[in-house]
Amino acid sequence: MDTLLLYFLDERDAAQRLAQALGLTAACIERHRFPDDELRLRLPLATQQRLPEQLLIYRSLDRPNDKLIELLLVADEARRLGAHRLLLVAPYLAYMRQDIAFVPGEVVSQRVIGAFLARHFDALVTVDPHLHRIERLEQAVPLANAIALSAAPLLARLLVERRQRPLLIGPDAESAQWVASAAAVSGFEYGVCAKHRQGDRQVEIVLPALDVSGRQVVLLDDVVSSGRTLARAAGLLLAAGAASVDVAVTHALFAGDALAVIKAAGVGEVWSTDCIAHPSNAVAMAPLLAEALRPLLEVAPA
Amino acid sequence: MDTLLLYFLDERDAAQRLAQALGLTAACIERHRFPDDELRLRLPLATQQRLPEQLLIYRSLDRPNDKLIELLLVADEARRLGAHRLLLVAPYLAYMRQDIAFVPGEVVSQRVIGAFLARHFDALVTVDPHLHRIERLEQAVPLANAIALSAAPLLARLLVERRQRPLLIGPDAESAQWVASAAAVSGFEYGVCAKHRQGDRQVEIVLPALDVSGRQVVLLDDVVSSGRTLARAAGLLLAAGAASVDVAVTHALFAGDALAVIKAAGVGEVWSTDCIAHPSNAVAMAPLLAEALRPLLEVAPA
Repeated sequence: MDTLLLYFLDERDAAQRLAQALGLTAACIERHRFPDDELRLRLPLATQQRLPEQLLIYRSLDRPNDKLIELLLVADEARRLGAHRLLLVAPYLAYMRQDIAFVPGEVVSQRVIGAFLARHFDALVTVDPHLHRIERLEQAVPLANAIALSAAPLLARLLVERRQRPLLIGPDAESAQWVASAAAVSGFEYGVCAKHRQGDRQVEIVLPALDVSGRQVVLLDDVVSSGRTLARAAGLLLAAGAASVDVAVTHALFAGDALAVIKAAGVGEVWSTDCIAHPSNAVAMAPLLAEALRPLLEVAPA
Repeated sequence: MDTLLLYFLDERDAAQRLAQALGLTAACIERHRFPDDELRLRLPLATQQRLPEQLLIYRSLDRPNDKLIELLLVADEARRLGAHRLLLVAPYLAYMRQDIAFVPGEVVSQRVIGAFLARHFDALVTVDPHLHRIERLEQAVPLANAIALSAAPLLARLLVERRQRPLLIGPDAESAQWVASAAAVSGFEYGVCAKHRQGDRQVEIVLPALDVSGRQVVLLDDVVSSGRTLARAAGLLLAAGAASVDVAVTHALFAGDALAVIKAAGVGEVWSTDCIAHPSNAVAMAPLLAEALRPLLEVAPA
């Protein structure tokens, strides 16, 4: 089956790395924003003004609302222009946190957005989705092929190169399993903080019962959003005598002044994967994404 | 059938005028934006944590992308919470301009967004949608009840109160039919400019062959977006001797610095309908919207 990888200009580098790993051609979706905020998109056509039958759409869904509308526009038009099979590669997946109504009437956005993606795509590959009360991605995105990869092993391998015997710290109980997997790959010691959240930007952190004095600490997490949690943890670790605190994270979301807040708290290095394009990117996900995508790509009979 | 009108806080005034005209209860959808731009919405529940069977959702779709995602979240969750019939009141309807691919591969966003709205709602009422090459709204939004109202008669009646014997001018050929209908209601003279567009913000205008010297001119249009067209027309009219130039418009979109540009060109008053909330609002659409909605509301048998 003819296959093409489509991407948007702001993600060209990561998308081209993935295309290369898969041996696919990559082409850019043209995007223009009108003064009234409406979007005009143009798909790259091949011969006879058709698209290949199989498309990989590469789109990380940080700052998601515009991008979800773009995906709707692309998927719907692509099927009209000849594509039969659409695979979404969304290294960062949005709206995965709200999986229940905490108060009656709250929209369970995970279910709505999951159903929306399942309606428009035939398969989904993502990295470290922020799931809470559900265990498997297909419970949120009802597709036979909804695949969640983890960047924890790749980040752990980066730390082996960059630090001698660091202590890995997860900022909250949710990160425990994920930090444990990075520790298992690297053989490093690890611990997990307890966290009490009070509103979007207020958090209280309790360090694990470990001696951190003189240690090189790396705070590990799946996503940094406001940065308040990591900043608080870094401050406590340095106050408790840690020699240094660095941060390794899958998704460099860094909403608003997050990066400045983390740096002001005394954090040294910040390393991230290229799931979300950011100056801190230090790990390319292309090899892992390609490995997961290869069995999903339908190949025309020889 | 139990019926409730739902609105968002930024449109409370117009929504409550409509609810009052229809004799319905109105309730606000709570909306919170997280630091990472995701949205949390909460629907107002009635008894037994259910919603009424019939909902009017009031949402004007200027700056549309966030709002389309909100509509997806609201519509999907509302059906899970007991609503059977969802009527969308979108006084301003987005993505109606791109009804063909001007170059191969361009996404025909009118068709995609139209199908999206038809999938999630049972009926749609809007005002002066900006349709070009199609004549009827249901060609763009495939619903049995897709109703397009016109604000031209209401704006004409406002002008009768505010100006003595004005000359009505439409800024381009597309506005001709619409300006003619305002002229028919008011009995005022009218003319239409010729317009040549070069890019989003560059336009060339040719005035109609009418003597404008000493006249009170009102420029009439369905929507003001960048404001460049109206500013150019106003400048030409004043240079040609018009005593004054005012503007009357259905949709006060005013992207970016549009209002400043219009004022700088010498425009006096700007009057708009409340289809898009704006300080220039001078005409309430509630009576006209209510008239169109009444036959669409299903009433439980007595």
